[in-house]
Amino acid sequence: MDGRVGVALIGSGRMGAFHAETVARRLPRARLVAVADPAPGAADRLTGALGAGRAYTDVAQLWDDPAVYAVVIAAPARSHADLVVAASAAGKHVFCEKPMAVTLADADRAIDAARSAGVVLQVGFNRRFAADWRAARDLLDAGRLGTPRMLRSLTRDPGGFDPSRVLPDTIFLETLIHDFDTLRFLNAGAEPVEVYATADALVEPTWRDRGLLDTAVVTVRFDNGAMAVADACFEASYGYDVRGEVLGSGGMATMGDGRRNGMAFSGPAGRLVETVRGDQELFQEAYIAELAAFVDAVGAGTASPVTGEDARAALAIALAAAESVRAGRPVRIDEVEK
Amino acid sequence: MDGRVGVALIGSGRMGAFHAETVARRLPRARLVAVADPAPGAADRLTGALGAGRAYTDVAQLWDDPAVYAVVIAAPARSHADLVVAASAAGKHVFCEKPMAVTLADADRAIDAARSAGVVLQVGFNRRFAADWRAARDLLDAGRLGTPRMLRSLTRDPGGFDPSRVLPDTIFLETLIHDFDTLRFLNAGAEPVEVYATADALVEPTWRDRGLLDTAVVTVRFDNGAMAVADACFEASYGYDVRGEVLGSGGMATMGDGRRNGMAFSGPAGRLVETVRGDQELFQEAYIAELAAFVDAVGAGTASPVTGEDARAALAIALAAAESVRAGRPVRIDEVEK
Amino acid sequence: MDGRVGVALIGSGRMGAFHAETVARRLPRARLVAVADPAPGAADRLTGALGAGRAYTDVAQLWDDPAVYAVVIAAPARSHADLVVAASAAGKHVFCEKPMAVTLADADRAIDAARSAGVVLQVGFNRRFAADWRAARDLLDAGRLGTPRMLRSLTRDPGGFDPSRVLPDTIFLETLIHDFDTLRFLNAGAEPVEVYATADALVEPTWRDRGLLDTAVVTVRFDNGAMAVADACFEASYGYDVRGEVLGSGGMATMGDGRRNGMAFSGPAGRLVETVRGDQELFQEAYIAELAAFVDAVGAGTASPVTGEDARAALAIALAAAESVRAGRPVRIDEVEK
Amino acid sequence: MDGRVGVALIGSGRMGAFHAETVARRLPRARLVAVADPAPGAADRLTGALGAGRAYTDVAQLWDDPAVYAVVIAAPARSHADLVVAASAAGKHVFCEKPMAVTLADADRAIDAARSAGVVLQVGFNRRFAADWRAARDLLDAGRLGTPRMLRSLTRDPGGFDPSRVLPDTIFLETLIHDFDTLRFLNAGAEPVEVYATADALVEPTWRDRGLLDTAVVTVRFDNGAMAVADACFEASYGYDVRGEVLGSGGMATMGDGRRNGMAFSGPAGRLVETVRGDQELFQEAYIAELAAFVDAVGAGTASPVTGEDARAALAIALAAAESVRAGRPVRIDEVEK
Repeated sequence: MDGRVGVALIGSGRMGAFHAETVARRLPRARLVAVADPAPGAADRLTGALGAGRAYTDVAQLWDDPAVYAVVIAAPARSHADLVVAASAAGKHVFCEKPMAVTLADADRAIDAARSAGVVLQVGFNRRFAADWRAARDLLDAGRLGTPRMLRSLTRDPGGFDPSRVLPDTIFLETLIHDFDTLRFLNAGAEPVEVYATADALVEPTWRDRGLLDTAVVTVRFDNGAMAVADACFEASYGYDVRGEVLGSGGMATMGDGRRNGMAFSGPAGRLVETVRGDQELFQEAYIAELAAFVDAVGAGTASPVTGEDARAALAIALAAAESVRAGRPVRIDEVEK
Repeated sequence: MDGRVGVALIGSGRMGAFHAETVARRLPRARLVAVADPAPGAADRLTGALGAGRAYTDVAQLWDDPAVYAVVIAAPARSHADLVVAASAAGKHVFCEKPMAVTLADADRAIDAARSAGVVLQVGFNRRFAADWRAARDLLDAGRLGTPRMLRSLTRDPGGFDPSRVLPDTIFLETLIHDFDTLRFLNAGAEPVEVYATADALVEPTWRDRGLLDTAVVTVRFDNGAMAVADACFEASYGYDVRGEVLGSGGMATMGDGRRNGMAFSGPAGRLVETVRGDQELFQEAYIAELAAFVDAVGAGTASPVTGEDARAALAIALAAAESVRAGRPVRIDEVEK
Repeated sequence: MDGRVGVALIGSGRMGAFHAETVARRLPRARLVAVADPAPGAADRLTGALGAGRAYTDVAQLWDDPAVYAVVIAAPARSHADLVVAASAAGKHVFCEKPMAVTLADADRAIDAARSAGVVLQVGFNRRFAADWRAARDLLDAGRLGTPRMLRSLTRDPGGFDPSRVLPDTIFLETLIHDFDTLRFLNAGAEPVEVYATADALVEPTWRDRGLLDTAVVTVRFDNGAMAVADACFEASYGYDVRGEVLGSGGMATMGDGRRNGMAFSGPAGRLVETVRGDQELFQEAYIAELAAFVDAVGAGTASPVTGEDARAALAIALAAAESVRAGRPVRIDEVEK
Repeated sequence: MDGRVGVALIGSGRMGAFHAETVARRLPRARLVAVADPAPGAADRLTGALGAGRAYTDVAQLWDDPAVYAVVIAAPARSHADLVVAASAAGKHVFCEKPMAVTLADADRAIDAARSAGVVLQVGFNRRFAADWRAARDLLDAGRLGTPRMLRSLTRDPGGFDPSRVLPDTIFLETLIHDFDTLRFLNAGAEPVEVYATADALVEPTWRDRGLLDTAVVTVRFDNGAMAVADACFEASYGYDVRGEVLGSGGMATMGDGRRNGMAFSGPAGRLVETVRGDQELFQEAYIAELAAFVDAVGAGTASPVTGEDARAALAIALAAAESVRAGRPVRIDEVEK
């Protein structure tokens, strides 16, 4: 090894490809040693395009490859927990895209596996690495926000979802999971107590009959009294909209101004600014920073900045939210913790 | 009469004094003919300062004063409905500060009284007359927002509430009532179906033992599927904060930028803009515009722009919210409509 | 007199009508006693619409009317100085729209006349009363901007100028005169030393042959070293644009954000805000505030907040700018002071 | 060669180190093959830190190194032209930091040398690659701005300049040269005709006796009639401030909002946003993008996106501005073209 951390990508889809390029080109302390993807030719194409890394179709090949020191899991969500367990068992450090698991039992398995193996386990809650959110957290840590009273986090996608890739809980487990983590991040030290959610298929009413949801509002009460609201919608005509807000006893922080750049056009219709159109545009730097932090933690043997426990806590909120929609009433976190 | 509408003020407190000055000085089509306030000297002081109007300590004197063509009710909230009924019975047109009533039965009494008497009844939901909110509604009416999917309205006061003037339902009946009306205004044509609220004393934890609430988050589902969130907090360190948002199938409107003026100071700490500090600063023009509209409706005999039915509908949401906090579960509007 | 200052309007055009309405309806300490306009029926129409004031076609009638305690001059610019002199001679206090004079000799005559008569003379530099500009000046006075180094002031009109009402120096004497005063206001205590201007007919190239100018940039050096730039254009597709900026040793103040309201629409094209479309929209409060200040000064016998000397100083810059364009070189203020 | 362009850095100072890191780590199509710096140990330290490239103390060693396919010149400004000539003579493609030359004769020599050698010559006007400026130019190219009438470009540094590195023309040749290029970029197709400048030592009055300047305002007339203003100040208490503006017949584009991120803190003093503090923060992406474009042009054999002629044209404005300050009058571009 040349001092750089050997990293393998599991999954070569949209996000996997971005992470692979980050490892290959944007992180001086990492190198891309392999890509694993079961789809024929997929890993080959990515390693070929990047000019780096072996291509595997069987993820198990990674476990035996001594050049693989750490893995980045960007496979389908439902496979994450098993992959964390397998990678840990093979002694590989693990960066896992969210959600790390879709059941609390799986989350516990993943956490235990990483702990037993003594590997770093980091989860892909990228907003913690985005400039606005980091700056808000810095304010909180500096005491300038005082005690949080109300929080808000929202995610609105630009639309075009493929219903075949959506499950009834997708909006909670894959979209709002980011917001649930953000709320914990911005209400540092507090934990959720009760969750109320309402959700529907408003973008695509035809989804309703299939039990799919595209719009949701979730209220979360925390043990420090703070009230939080997360909302998500799978379609916003103006692009990709992610915002946050903390109202504390000392002041308020707002995050996410939605502008693509600092240029404004004033014309007959008024003043127009361009809006952000996708996650890789809004969070490009955050996606890179989270992997840089992972590589640093692996290289220095320090603690993961976003732990399996963080993933589990956000998952508990998501599961309570889904249950709240089914039950039509608020659901306590301890109800999903049986 | 000189062509101007003779208006009497009922109540000479902070809001009453502002309205009285508006009638006396800012509305060319109105004149201030009387002020009634039971507190000794209060009405006198106001009419003296304005150089206009007779001063009464007994509101009943207004009913007999033929110069009083219309009244503006700015007395304590719990007296509003009775005053609407009495004024209507005397044949006076009525502008009533919110809340028009604190029970649905009282709301119905007030509506019936005005209808029977054939007088104009307008309710003080001033945000409908504020530039940002009017502009958003214009967008909606023009079809540019499409069908609303998610809405937001919030009110954060600068603090300093006197607990002796706060009742357990004050945050819903007197503060959030504005937001509930705003949500209906911005989701025009739809009606609320179900309400979930969580509330607490976070600003003044000592209020909790007395059953008082200073912070609340309310989720409202509408019959067109739209989900709305209203929140309120009795203290914001940065002043008076009122905002709104509509996400529709066509786009999003946001209201309320919180700036006091367009000046910004860039210095060593960054760029600073002043924030709005009070309701009479933020809504000065709206407060004037709503009375101007009232005087126009009275003068022209046209329909009230904000009706008793609007007041009743917002009240139903407020009552459901309060009940939701008590019951710890979502409450359907038809539950408070028994 | 009923304690209110009796005010007459001279000129019933666009600006005169606005001021007349302000006197009649928006200023509790003033009353409109007369309007004078030589155009047949013009004064009549305005007094009729406002329901107040006598109508004169001969301005001299005002001088003899004892109810006229003060006049507001909103007649054509070239008549201002003579009217100030005549009003002063008649013992009337004077508010004069800018420019107070178009030659320094006339400015001196006007100043002398008011001083000899002991009447208040205030000039219509309304930006000094606009919230953004007042706030910037407050910062300066509080020492937070330190010593000004660079200043900027600009005026862009929405277009539609009638060339028959434009003279070769109009852009300097009637438009940029506001900016020249603003630069002095924001660089308080300093005086201009040298001026360089470049100007052209860029909106309407056909104006060039008639010697008319519609676009200009003016650089002003002050005796405290500060450099200032004023610019003006008679057409902006997005409306009426007035901005200012002070860069000082302590920080920077920027004025004028151009938004009509705080509502933003996010849609497929991005995020759009409405822009201000005219001076009476942008400066409505400032126009009222300057007359209120005038009435206060007249009523209390205190000093004029915007003096004839201020008008003269701005005029000197305007004359130097016009001369600079003719001569194609920088012109010192003392060159126009011969 | 492995398909990547071998690039050498000339100069390992602040900007040179940034460019070297970009070549070594951020550009997949380039590799850092050498760094040359005459200061003992300087090149060694940089190549060591980056883990790439040979270190030379004599720039001539680069000319003989066959692995060096292109050079990036980030040496002191006064050496640029000679280095461009030498690099061209050695057949190396050249990216040269601004200013490419400080006399027109030197600029011509550099242009001729590159042309004769058939190498790519690109100049470091990074703003052309910054998102705001690119977006404004796109608007212009799309016709939405119409014909430019007034333009503005400004540069304000955060201060701390070392007077020993400042020459009398530094503010024009090294700072405002960016703005002069920006004005040409935003007034595409037009060329400057006449320049008027005023400048002084306002930040450090003691500089005045040494003939140094720290604050300047420059007016430029273009052959399409457009008027432009560039200003610069070597100290802004709020950081690094670069802005631009184009007012055209169709509308206005503004560039540079100065925010460090999208987070805002609302507290007792108002609403505060952080401001950008340095050029490598504001223009990080632009600095990378300009080198990426250079590597692309070199690799593909296509035309330079920012030519020696562009550098020469901006230099002519800078020289005319400096001459204008000396002469105290406007200076025509053809006067410096003798």
